[in-house]
Amino acid sequence: MERIILGIDPGTTVMGFGLIRTEKNKMHFLLLDELLLHKYESHSLRLKRIFEKTLSIIDEFHPDELAIEAPFYGKNVQSMLKLGRAQGVAMAAGLYREIPISEYSPKKIKMSITGNGNASKEQVAGMLQNLLGLKEIPKRLDATDGLAAAVCHFFNSGREEAQKTYTGWDAFLKDNPNRKR
Amino acid sequence: MERIILGIDPGTTVMGFGLIRTEKNKMHFLLLDELLLHKYESHSLRLKRIFEKTLSIIDEFHPDELAIEAPFYGKNVQSMLKLGRAQGVAMAAGLYREIPISEYSPKKIKMSITGNGNASKEQVAGMLQNLLGLKEIPKRLDATDGLAAAVCHFFNSGREEAQKTYTGWDAFLKDNPNRKR
Repeated sequence: MERIILGIDPGTTVMGFGLIRTEKNKMHFLLLDELLLHKYESHSLRLKRIFEKTLSIIDEFHPDELAIEAPFYGKNVQSMLKLGRAQGVAMAAGLYREIPISEYSPKKIKMSITGNGNASKEQVAGMLQNLLGLKEIPKRLDATDGLAAAVCHFFNSGREEAQKTYTGWDAFLKDNPNRKR
Repeated sequence: MERIILGIDPGTTVMGFGLIRTEKNKMHFLLLDELLLHKYESHSLRLKRIFEKTLSIIDEFHPDELAIEAPFYGKNVQSMLKLGRAQGVAMAAGLYREIPISEYSPKKIKMSITGNGNASKEQVAGMLQNLLGLKEIPKRLDATDGLAAAVCHFFNSGREEAQKTYTGWDAFLKDNPNRKR
């Protein structure tokens, strides 16, 4: 069965998008894109652009599934609120189009792709190049994180943990009840 | 000039919505509504319902402006990420329909309505009853927070600070640079 997977790395300065088409056990590279947010002055305008960009990619490529790189904790409450908004806006575009969303932590994504949860961005990019037969290593390493999320989702989508429509947050809280409050 | 203001209190368990119509210095009550989120099992489904509900209210009442109650800091990173997502999804609906969004802190809203930044929910509800000529005090106090945000926005919309399309976050960071990271 053919599937198109959109991977997103939602950040507050760069938003990375990666698209793959999968067929049985094969992956085909479709798109690597990024949204540079620093040029937009207000936080509001950034959120608006995130929504528009995500929706436009969805409406152009009609992905069947959405995979998001989502850290579940961070340094401070301010940055997490801001990151949560960026994630929420990107997720809203997917939810609006009724596309199932799966979440993966950065560590999980690195582990799935390189076998090492602490791999560098360069190592992840190198593996993506091999896996997808890209002519060159993607230069914008921020943008590759979205692609990495899509590939990670493909690798995990046969497994029980990713069969649910939605895994990340709920699974995380279940596994880490002490982080709930 | 007539304006319709939609106020939202985005929470992760209850989402409060309040609508007012304003004409010069007069306010008219239009709607008090809430979305109970605890009945939805997954975080994803909650976010989806927030987006759908916000968009449906927008498309029914065509508000000219959106006011959101938004705390800028909280107890821990987990809850802020979750809250940020809920806010982001609600804001996405407004941004999608090109409606300007203003943010107000809970303290600012209480202060605008009761003159006391530490007023209780009951005091805020009592003042809303008077200001809007409601027959009875709204019973669901969570839902009134959305209405309070709308009224706060009306009270502040003549002032310089609220004339910008977007005030909350950017203004907050400007005034509190030490909270930036």
